[in-house]
Amino acid sequence: MQRERSTAGLVTALERVVGASQLKVGNDIPDVALRDWSDELGGTPLALVTPRHTDAVAAVMRLCHGYDTPVVPQGGRSGLAGGAVPSEGAVLLSLAGLDRIEEIDVASGLMVVGAGCILQRIQEAALDAGLSFPLDLGARGSCQIGGNIATNAGGNRVIRYGMTRELVLGLEVVLADGTILPMMNRMPKNNAALDLKHLFIGSEGTLGVITRAVLKLHPGVGGANAALVAVADFEAAAGLLRHAQRELSCRVTAFELMWNDYYRAVLAETGQRAPVAPDHALYALIEMQGANADAERPGFEAMLETAFEAELVIDAAVAQSQREVEAFWSLRDGVAEILSRRAPTINFDVSLPLARIGECVDEIRAALEAAFPALQLIFFGHAGDSNIHLVAGPITDVDPTGHGIEKTVYEIIRTYGGSVSAEHGIGLHKKPWLAYSRSESELAMLRHLKRSLDPKGILNPGKVL
Amino acid sequence: MQRERSTAGLVTALERVVGASQLKVGNDIPDVALRDWSDELGGTPLALVTPRHTDAVAAVMRLCHGYDTPVVPQGGRSGLAGGAVPSEGAVLLSLAGLDRIEEIDVASGLMVVGAGCILQRIQEAALDAGLSFPLDLGARGSCQIGGNIATNAGGNRVIRYGMTRELVLGLEVVLADGTILPMMNRMPKNNAALDLKHLFIGSEGTLGVITRAVLKLHPGVGGANAALVAVADFEAAAGLLRHAQRELSCRVTAFELMWNDYYRAVLAETGQRAPVAPDHALYALIEMQGANADAERPGFEAMLETAFEAELVIDAAVAQSQREVEAFWSLRDGVAEILSRRAPTINFDVSLPLARIGECVDEIRAALEAAFPALQLIFFGHAGDSNIHLVAGPITDVDPTGHGIEKTVYEIIRTYGGSVSAEHGIGLHKKPWLAYSRSESELAMLRHLKRSLDPKGILNPGKVL
Repeated sequence: MQRERSTAGLVTALERVVGASQLKVGNDIPDVALRDWSDELGGTPLALVTPRHTDAVAAVMRLCHGYDTPVVPQGGRSGLAGGAVPSEGAVLLSLAGLDRIEEIDVASGLMVVGAGCILQRIQEAALDAGLSFPLDLGARGSCQIGGNIATNAGGNRVIRYGMTRELVLGLEVVLADGTILPMMNRMPKNNAALDLKHLFIGSEGTLGVITRAVLKLHPGVGGANAALVAVADFEAAAGLLRHAQRELSCRVTAFELMWNDYYRAVLAETGQRAPVAPDHALYALIEMQGANADAERPGFEAMLETAFEAELVIDAAVAQSQREVEAFWSLRDGVAEILSRRAPTINFDVSLPLARIGECVDEIRAALEAAFPALQLIFFGHAGDSNIHLVAGPITDVDPTGHGIEKTVYEIIRTYGGSVSAEHGIGLHKKPWLAYSRSESELAMLRHLKRSLDPKGILNPGKVL
Repeated sequence: MQRERSTAGLVTALERVVGASQLKVGNDIPDVALRDWSDELGGTPLALVTPRHTDAVAAVMRLCHGYDTPVVPQGGRSGLAGGAVPSEGAVLLSLAGLDRIEEIDVASGLMVVGAGCILQRIQEAALDAGLSFPLDLGARGSCQIGGNIATNAGGNRVIRYGMTRELVLGLEVVLADGTILPMMNRMPKNNAALDLKHLFIGSEGTLGVITRAVLKLHPGVGGANAALVAVADFEAAAGLLRHAQRELSCRVTAFELMWNDYYRAVLAETGQRAPVAPDHALYALIEMQGANADAERPGFEAMLETAFEAELVIDAAVAQSQREVEAFWSLRDGVAEILSRRAPTINFDVSLPLARIGECVDEIRAALEAAFPALQLIFFGHAGDSNIHLVAGPITDVDPTGHGIEKTVYEIIRTYGGSVSAEHGIGLHKKPWLAYSRSESELAMLRHLKRSLDPKGILNPGKVL
């Protein structure tokens, strides 16, 4: 009774703060607010609020803090780890209302945005200004920049532009008690005390709610050179990457590796023509974006020629047009078709010390084949960043819960000092495995920080830790 | 008496932990341990210990924590903000004994080092392995990597390789109570929960003692192309930078700006030949390192030609050899001669939103000329990174304490949303001005973190906050 009265009081107060049109309760909360792109199931939320400015976010946090009520921040809900699914009785705090592109400062190479801006809109606004915002991932049309920052999103071109962290100059965050913490730095260099924004980048909404950001823009890009090459083994692939980075002064914008199982699967599922014969151990898609792709082609081809001479490459197809660059990428993006054909699958997102990726993949494959002979596997990933993806499935008749497969893989990742999450984050889905990649002292420090910044534990409770 | 007994007990216990040869007390503490490259004066330390491994550092911290005794971590003591000068009664904790290069992993592009390794030794070890560690600054021959990380050092090539932060993959830190916090990540991508190392990078020894690090290495560099160009005003300089970054796909490794006052002063003080006539408003040194400087020259020159056509550049000298590249750099490095000739000076290290650097410099110059007509000024800096240096002096007969000059400059920096420290940190020297660049909420969060991680306040007390 006490709880009900208190709940009703909170809802009334929230309505006063955000306005009736920006509040939903009970069955009015749309289904899409109850899940993300993972299959994690959350609890039943109390309400969904969609404030339109930072002060309203702060007021929502103050109220929920006063009522000891959990808050789950939500961006575009395209996360793969369950970081944004509702906690039982929580207020869902959608940032979709903070969707202003406030400023583009071409001369400083930066953009000021609200956390609710869709990534693709930011990319397009940068392009319109003659610049680029290089963060890019499959969910670009629905993910919000606040969520990208809260999860330190990776994507296709991390090797050249870094993770989301490297693209954030400044942040504004609302803390658990409603305090607004402005850190809207606009400079690449600022050593006036500790850089506090890193407390929130990658914290998955557990330490604060990101409301605004200053983003770093890069020069616009005119096109790309790309090649699809076959290599004999991982050692050759790693040697090719070093060679390319040295010869091209680190202009490589993608180095996507595909093991033979992936390459054959994507050709079969998508019906695409094979640019290079499908009987090699490994394939790499190497891309170099630049201001003028035609002028940069000779240098790119010279790099490939010396790679042939050094026996790093067995076979190669070089894109002769931007259309062919896209065709190579469609081999990499074709993973979507494989995923839907083989569902239900388990999709791993791990990282490993680069030098040991080859042997680790071999060990994982052997262990899974021994334990689950009928399981289909494909290995691929952003190998240039140390990030490997593995899709295992369908798991239906093999290991329906997937836990046996997960345990097999993560036990091996642990022995290599790898990470159970290279880019997707921990959320709910990877909580059981976090201790495989972080020491007990690190976990203790994470818990200590959480208690210190959110003593009531209301911010995205149960996620990550 | 209690205090004396307790002090003697601590010294005895420290000796047991580090060994008699690694402990100095009283007059045996060498003078060099009492100061850094700033003119900040510290207190009288209790002892200087130089442990040889992490466990001994942890034991020292446990002891000092138990005795409530302050600890001042010391690297190469080349800081310019007084961050490493002794606190009264403190134990000076030198990391010089942790000087092992433990591992170079060429295939993964990383190096594992002790915090006490001298930067230049790390650079040379990377070169010997065919790679490069691109952090570079004047103190390279004496500064230690632990200090570089603790201060998030900048330097000459931040525009291309980032601050020290961007070059650190993993860290090992000893906390105030002696807990060892291992975070020796080897992967560029690791989103398994919050990335805790950022709590310590740039914390200036106030939150933990850095003992080891995993460093990111870059491909080796074969040479550089460089030009010294004259431009009409800051707007043209900023336009030239954007043009160069676009045309060269962000391969610019330095964009050093020199205002006319600097250019004339360095020519006069060093007697060097002027590559470009000294009657222009601004000069930029543009450098592009790469695998093969000769092969890359046509692209570099084409960039300059289109800059001329776009009227971004008035005059230019292009280096025809590596010797000429070095000659251009000696104009920039000649600041050392100006500093010694004009001593005592005040040396500012500020950053500003890039677009507004020109007007802000004009405003600072006008304000200083009005208030201190006899004061000599030179403006220069890593403008591509938003970082400007100003040397004002000699100040002897103008403003002997320098406080008036500092106040004039920092008041203007504040109105532009700039930073009072782009790269040198806060230490003791800039404490009075920290609030000019950080909001009250940020300062409150910094204090909160300090209390949370070092409740007894023993780690580098009185620094930064």
